[in-house]
Amino acid sequence: MARVVVLGAGVMGTALTIPLVDNGHDVRLVGTHLDGDIIEEVHQSHTHPRLRTPVPERVQPYPIARLDQAMQGVELLILGVNSLGIEWAAEILGPLLTTDIPVVTIAKGMAGDSQGLHIIPDVLRAGLPDSYREDIPLAAIGGPSIAGELAARWHTSIVVTGTDKWRLEQIAGILRTPYYHIWTSTDIVGVEVCVALKNLYAVGVGLAYGWLEKQGRGEYGAAIHNPAAAMFAQGLLETAYLVDYMGGEERSVYTLPGAGDAFVTCLGGRNVQMGRWMSMGLTYKEAKSKYKPNETVEGPQLAIAIGSTIRNMVNRGELNGDKLPLLNMLIDIVCDEMELEIPWARFFG
Amino acid sequence: MARVVVLGAGVMGTALTIPLVDNGHDVRLVGTHLDGDIIEEVHQSHTHPRLRTPVPERVQPYPIARLDQAMQGVELLILGVNSLGIEWAAEILGPLLTTDIPVVTIAKGMAGDSQGLHIIPDVLRAGLPDSYREDIPLAAIGGPSIAGELAARWHTSIVVTGTDKWRLEQIAGILRTPYYHIWTSTDIVGVEVCVALKNLYAVGVGLAYGWLEKQGRGEYGAAIHNPAAAMFAQGLLETAYLVDYMGGEERSVYTLPGAGDAFVTCLGGRNVQMGRWMSMGLTYKEAKSKYKPNETVEGPQLAIAIGSTIRNMVNRGELNGDKLPLLNMLIDIVCDEMELEIPWARFFG
Repeated sequence: MARVVVLGAGVMGTALTIPLVDNGHDVRLVGTHLDGDIIEEVHQSHTHPRLRTPVPERVQPYPIARLDQAMQGVELLILGVNSLGIEWAAEILGPLLTTDIPVVTIAKGMAGDSQGLHIIPDVLRAGLPDSYREDIPLAAIGGPSIAGELAARWHTSIVVTGTDKWRLEQIAGILRTPYYHIWTSTDIVGVEVCVALKNLYAVGVGLAYGWLEKQGRGEYGAAIHNPAAAMFAQGLLETAYLVDYMGGEERSVYTLPGAGDAFVTCLGGRNVQMGRWMSMGLTYKEAKSKYKPNETVEGPQLAIAIGSTIRNMVNRGELNGDKLPLLNMLIDIVCDEMELEIPWARFFG
Repeated sequence: MARVVVLGAGVMGTALTIPLVDNGHDVRLVGTHLDGDIIEEVHQSHTHPRLRTPVPERVQPYPIARLDQAMQGVELLILGVNSLGIEWAAEILGPLLTTDIPVVTIAKGMAGDSQGLHIIPDVLRAGLPDSYREDIPLAAIGGPSIAGELAARWHTSIVVTGTDKWRLEQIAGILRTPYYHIWTSTDIVGVEVCVALKNLYAVGVGLAYGWLEKQGRGEYGAAIHNPAAAMFAQGLLETAYLVDYMGGEERSVYTLPGAGDAFVTCLGGRNVQMGRWMSMGLTYKEAKSKYKPNETVEGPQLAIAIGSTIRNMVNRGELNGDKLPLLNMLIDIVCDEMELEIPWARFFG
């Protein structure tokens, strides 16, 4: 039995408490400052407003004000916040972590600055205190996992990634159940780049679906597979290019973190929807404010986070723009509201 | 302008006549002995019973009895028959081909014998006369392409593959239109293995969908993404193993022929349906005779074609069975009606 803290009571963080409790661990679910109502609901009724499955009674809910207390004796910390919460988490966790406590991120995203592109665990690391920053064991979860399905205990296969093989096996052992299948990968760069980019490329797949609807010729997802599949494949090809550039492994691209996660993401969800709306004539800002005013849409959010860095790297010749026509187009339409024109003939170069 | 013969008037062969005619070529559509009614319908009304788009008037329909005449002056032959028709085609074309005429196959499949596994172009080659067998230029088309969408002139991206780069560019030039995007690949082994296996692994995705339905907990495709995505990713991982074993390239696995084509195939179609029915309790034979008595279902057909060869190769130690748990399970349930038990914990090894 291990004492595990999950910080962030969104659907995915909360869903993860279920295999943890099934494995007999001492599980503490700590809400962020945005999760106050959720934690109260879990406390009162063992339910979560956005999960259909009950939250097990053995999960102990904590408000953020009691984070210190929740962290006492913690053996594993799962960081359930999204990409926009990583810097906040680093700040609040800074005084509470030690190099004995592995931290597993589940956020999907990347950051960009004048140094280049950064994966989520490195963003977290950069925000931690100098005194132990380099020694803290960081890991991440990647792969196709809809929270509600995991909570329902349906077969879910994911990868835990990090640099220390022994730590990864330890974490996998804590999480693994007969329905939650955990593999380990030391390709943390490849895994993290794949799972971040899939959200943005899913916007591309959504553009294909929306094109048909705009012409009044079909219903959502019903009958436009060829253009969607080309977007899907181009997304993976560009992902492979960026994974390779950043020092990751090709294998991650066609397994759970890459193609597997992209498959789930492209079947629906908010990134695909955002692409549809943009294809039907809305700008990103219009679509966001009309349909998802209060939610983070990770795909466009990634374009905003890394768009100018990607452009600078292309301009400096560090990245080959001919290898990234879809990414560049997605950045153009999200960041600068440029007119949508899909560069079909520039794909697969 | 080129004179092009398409042999086989199924939906895909017929759909290909549309970009060809749009490019101004002289296009002759020759039905097989099973396509008599189709050819008559194209002749009478410029329609095809299974394509919603009209067949252009400039497409010249020929019954199989007039194949000799259609072949006069042919510069490119597209072989539109499915995997079960390849040996027949080799026999009938044997006296009519010369080494000047490139032949492009569109069938998806593989063959197995005591020598090992064989891709479709090699099956065709083996059936041609000794006198020119080794010198005839063979190529193949692979990638995500629903025939009806191509016929409707929706953006469709595919790969033409073969060993002679110059020939491939020539063929691509004949086919390419503003909506039909053609890339070339000299990885004919990788492309052909990917496009064949995707049909069988789509049965695996169907098994995931059917599992939910069997429990009365969901509707088709509505809400079981995690297990389906794991099947999808495991299929690509095993495909990569077999592609590598046969001398193909990893890149084909995560681009149009692999992940792209698998994406389309796993969104629906008869292979996924066959998996659903088997997951809901029917044997392969029961499902086939009940729902698809007169159609070739390429995925299970591939299991039948290569199942015993795969098992022999594993037994002889030529293939590592631990790398192919899903393929072996699919062969077991299709060929021997063994009980369905998905080896989740053996995936991703």
